[in-house]
Amino acid sequence: MQNNARPLPLAITMGEPAGIGGELSLKAWQQCSKDTLPFFIVDDPKRLQDISERLSLDVPIKKITSPSEASSSFKHALPVIEQELYKAVSPGIPDSLNGSSVLASIERSVSFVQSGQASAVVTNPINKSVLYDAGFKHPGHTEFLAELASSDTASVMMLACKQLRVVPITIHLSLTEAIKALDENLIVNTIHTTNTALKQDFGIAHPRIAVSGLNPHAGENGSMGREEIDIIAPILDKLRNEGINVTEPLPADTMFHARARQEYDVAVCMYHDQALIPIKTLDFDGGVNITLGLPFIRTSPDHGTAFNIAGKGLANPSSLLAAINMASNMVTKRTLRF
Amino acid sequence: MQNNARPLPLAITMGEPAGIGGELSLKAWQQCSKDTLPFFIVDDPKRLQDISERLSLDVPIKKITSPSEASSSFKHALPVIEQELYKAVSPGIPDSLNGSSVLASIERSVSFVQSGQASAVVTNPINKSVLYDAGFKHPGHTEFLAELASSDTASVMMLACKQLRVVPITIHLSLTEAIKALDENLIVNTIHTTNTALKQDFGIAHPRIAVSGLNPHAGENGSMGREEIDIIAPILDKLRNEGINVTEPLPADTMFHARARQEYDVAVCMYHDQALIPIKTLDFDGGVNITLGLPFIRTSPDHGTAFNIAGKGLANPSSLLAAINMASNMVTKRTLRF
Repeated sequence: MQNNARPLPLAITMGEPAGIGGELSLKAWQQCSKDTLPFFIVDDPKRLQDISERLSLDVPIKKITSPSEASSSFKHALPVIEQELYKAVSPGIPDSLNGSSVLASIERSVSFVQSGQASAVVTNPINKSVLYDAGFKHPGHTEFLAELASSDTASVMMLACKQLRVVPITIHLSLTEAIKALDENLIVNTIHTTNTALKQDFGIAHPRIAVSGLNPHAGENGSMGREEIDIIAPILDKLRNEGINVTEPLPADTMFHARARQEYDVAVCMYHDQALIPIKTLDFDGGVNITLGLPFIRTSPDHGTAFNIAGKGLANPSSLLAAINMASNMVTKRTLRF
Repeated sequence: MQNNARPLPLAITMGEPAGIGGELSLKAWQQCSKDTLPFFIVDDPKRLQDISERLSLDVPIKKITSPSEASSSFKHALPVIEQELYKAVSPGIPDSLNGSSVLASIERSVSFVQSGQASAVVTNPINKSVLYDAGFKHPGHTEFLAELASSDTASVMMLACKQLRVVPITIHLSLTEAIKALDENLIVNTIHTTNTALKQDFGIAHPRIAVSGLNPHAGENGSMGREEIDIIAPILDKLRNEGINVTEPLPADTMFHARARQEYDVAVCMYHDQALIPIKTLDFDGGVNITLGLPFIRTSPDHGTAFNIAGKGLANPSSLLAAINMASNMVTKRTLRF
């Protein structure tokens, strides 16, 4: 995307201010490695300063007015572009009056990437029910980002940890609606987007894509459901004829143990829990959420706002750090290839 | 169940003779520990002898005519009660002409337990499609055993490994049918049976039962499906009022990581893959299938016939051994309590 030798900084959103996002951002700056790209937060500098002091984190905060100042400041302080809040924050108690600030932090982070001032967006967790009160109309973060990107390609959610990458074909739908939503367009687009992203952003020349069935035992030749025979397998045959390396519909319960995972680079699954159960069972703290198919790179931690531990200093930054490092790697791979 | 000091032997079925069952039975006898109860196989002694010789396992076979001979023979040889086969077995190539023998081995093993000659049934894997050709009319092994037991209690499948116990409320149904099948009777009966079995056969005085929701994020307050609100939560409230220690409907993706697993003794799940994905991801080789709610104890390995490696000496007996040891422990617990 960029051809300059030094990649642009990453933009990190505030997330829900009553959650653990601020604490995570401070800890991520403390714990990041020399390979991590510089980043800046779009947040309220005063509140981050308060969290740093209250939790004795001693992270110096540097208020900046443009992303171009981030890289030079990053070594000595956490760079923050100011995003005003309208209500004082009580940890663990979200307030819909701050909802517009949460959304603005996301919108501004995206616009910094769109205007070539940042290389990727990393989002802190939001609380959708508070945002709905503030007028938010999307089923989730990912769908909101897709609208901001006004992209023709439908976005695709990938979750990744050290042992496994998964892509659910449907996400935030009831299970009944998820079954109804499975059609050729959705499956083909998801697998195309996944295949392209693995080549472009993960440096895998010939991605091996395992695809689950919908039913127990992948329907066992139609005796427990016919979606595999009627819908999924014919689509996979077509994709294989296009040269994409996809499996037959596989029984989901036997796809995710250590030996099975050696056979593929990503598992594409038919619905939310089929994909998220195995990855969160294997690595609950270090998973990263990656949005594929956007015109820009976006990652996020694979957990929520954790109101129950907000403000207590107990938040584990592993997943945000993994998301920042994943974005750094992806930016570097894209920069190298284009 | 029994009050005699020395528990009766376990009855082990032949399973599909073209699969790995014979090899597993021989290896299980070789590798079992001093705590394992004596067992006998209902199988063709000649074919077991052949497998033992062909794979250089050197397991002595002792043909017995009554289960009462098993315990005295067990230390020096694998006791076998003869079950005739009608067709020579080719490893990996099942023949429906042997289907009636596969079924007879199961029926006779059950009848040995029912007549007080054996303490539990451990079943080797069967291949249902071959049995359907031989007139088998059940969706699976478990349902067949329930019919043989002519029990009023609906049977319940539990899978267990060292890290986790799971119970799926529905098993061999398409996902669409599994959603339709969720009703009060089924959920209440499954949880009652599970609760009783954990007390009676696992020695857990006050079982802690985690229950999953059906939808992603357990429906997230109805925004992604209403089954949690309309069906599952009210049933769990009633069960809690009866004194059963059940959770609210939990998001399935965050139930199975190591810290979450510390909070419960069993996870009751709404459908097959929700239960089987986490346990097979965590322990693919050592899982045990236990049928709860039968008038007798029944366990089995948590894998299939593995035709692709049948006859090659590559079969791993961990799961059958775990099933035999689980049955031994359960028999001992029941014997101690009654």
